[in-house]
Amino acid sequence: MNRPSEFHLIAELFAPLATAPGALGLKDDAALITPPEGCDLVVTADALVEGVHFLSSDPPDTIARKALRVNLSDLAAKGAVPTGYFLAVSLPNHLEYGWLTEFARGLAEDGKAFSIPLMGGDTTSTPGPLTIAITAFGYVPRGTMTQRAGAKPGDSVYVSGTIGDAGGGLELLTSETQAGNANAYLIGRYRVPTPRLALGLALRGVATASLDVSDGLIADVGHLADVSQVKIVLDAAQIPLSESLKSLWGTSEGTIVRAATAGDDYEIVFTAGDIDAECLGVRRIGHVTNGSGVFLMGNDGEITVSRTGFQHF
Amino acid sequence: MNRPSEFHLIAELFAPLATAPGALGLKDDAALITPPEGCDLVVTADALVEGVHFLSSDPPDTIARKALRVNLSDLAAKGAVPTGYFLAVSLPNHLEYGWLTEFARGLAEDGKAFSIPLMGGDTTSTPGPLTIAITAFGYVPRGTMTQRAGAKPGDSVYVSGTIGDAGGGLELLTSETQAGNANAYLIGRYRVPTPRLALGLALRGVATASLDVSDGLIADVGHLADVSQVKIVLDAAQIPLSESLKSLWGTSEGTIVRAATAGDDYEIVFTAGDIDAECLGVRRIGHVTNGSGVFLMGNDGEITVSRTGFQHF
Repeated sequence: MNRPSEFHLIAELFAPLATAPGALGLKDDAALITPPEGCDLVVTADALVEGVHFLSSDPPDTIARKALRVNLSDLAAKGAVPTGYFLAVSLPNHLEYGWLTEFARGLAEDGKAFSIPLMGGDTTSTPGPLTIAITAFGYVPRGTMTQRAGAKPGDSVYVSGTIGDAGGGLELLTSETQAGNANAYLIGRYRVPTPRLALGLALRGVATASLDVSDGLIADVGHLADVSQVKIVLDAAQIPLSESLKSLWGTSEGTIVRAATAGDDYEIVFTAGDIDAECLGVRRIGHVTNGSGVFLMGNDGEITVSRTGFQHF
Repeated sequence: MNRPSEFHLIAELFAPLATAPGALGLKDDAALITPPEGCDLVVTADALVEGVHFLSSDPPDTIARKALRVNLSDLAAKGAVPTGYFLAVSLPNHLEYGWLTEFARGLAEDGKAFSIPLMGGDTTSTPGPLTIAITAFGYVPRGTMTQRAGAKPGDSVYVSGTIGDAGGGLELLTSETQAGNANAYLIGRYRVPTPRLALGLALRGVATASLDVSDGLIADVGHLADVSQVKIVLDAAQIPLSESLKSLWGTSEGTIVRAATAGDDYEIVFTAGDIDAECLGVRRIGHVTNGSGVFLMGNDGEITVSRTGFQHF
């Protein structure tokens, strides 16, 4: 194959990303992390598999960015400041050096943009699909991580950004429809999500519970309700949809259900008391009450949702 | 397929392994790690791919043990005390629930044996081979991690255990030869390596440089020489071989080369001044001098080695 050995790959493409002293230039078996005094280290891991979490035809730099950003999104939802990441990448033999250069460029640019250096990892070959497992690290002042548990009856439910865009983007990429300019936005939302790191920091001590929307809004709110042992009621009309998505899918209740079960949004959904939602750039979409489960209320009462989100199997 | 959803898998098979409070019962997006004061956190990652690092026919519990142990081996070589690990596992659809139960049993038993709880991770499906990416964590007193850099001219080179056994085991498993009882040892060495954690602790402040043998003795000693910017000369006659391997491969210089390039040993190779090798249960196999590269000396001078170890691509 047209590419150098593992050791050259690491030295040429990945070592330049390892700017933290504790990464030891990627020349050791391990890296060193020394959290500042009074801080907890927040650790999260998400793996992306070709054909499951991204398309083979996606540009290599966007695949890298997505792999890093879905992990940054978890750190954001926890109120953590990113500090470093480990990359275990299994590379199919057909990937050329030029592809890998683009992949590394995506990682380099996003690593710089989000101040998160590569700390270490593992590079191996695979006879199967490209698989990217990232473990990311962040700091929070001790004891302040925003958890999934903590939502209380009386809280409101809020969400950042808009929901369903990535689902629309994926549909455009996998259908016969020619994607026009207006749809570049939706495709971008599928390929390169935006981790809401600043919002996550602003929610420290404000949110009672929080997570990022990856499986689908309803599914993820369901996780939050389960772990917090509360019931959550969502107001379908308040779920924020982008103009681009409305152009593609319309504005019916069916569209809202579709958007709220599509997944891959990487927005933050959280519970809190009364807050200035507009000032934080978030939308109030529901409330927390006694009980269990998640309910989606439409104009004519509860909307039955048969499939709440992305099925991993 | 005959298995429950991701959420049930995690709750039934993996949550029981998450005994550390910071794992939050695997019910959150992230885990919390708070290193004791005065400690560095040592982080390492190794991924195993079916057909590359283990065989499809290997028992599921040994696949899990190997995935965990190769990471523990890195922690051992760094002198770290294991504290937790993250597991990102990509599961092919054909794996049945019974297989996964055995896989989880292997992780559970080894997690207990080596006092390393599961802290978090990600479970996803894959259309390709089973892929297991583990990121493992350990502690060292601040500033004491044994690095690859540090070998000095005048140091001796030592290795634990015996070399080449895993290569012999792999040959038995992939050849037509029926493996007898005597060979169960070699197969065990391939499937379930032994991380040398106690030795790693004993070498804190003793070893000037250290790493674990995964690619092959000569290749890995080469990494150590490169990073330490020294030349290392190995004495072929001193490279320790097991009686089982000698029975299979004989005792010629060719055997020694084969053993020293087979890989998957997960022994610790390290440099140090004069130490009581017998007391530590290790063998002196060479010395460090000025220069660069690694040289294998036989009875009739230098032995040329065309392939130094496992090729990742």
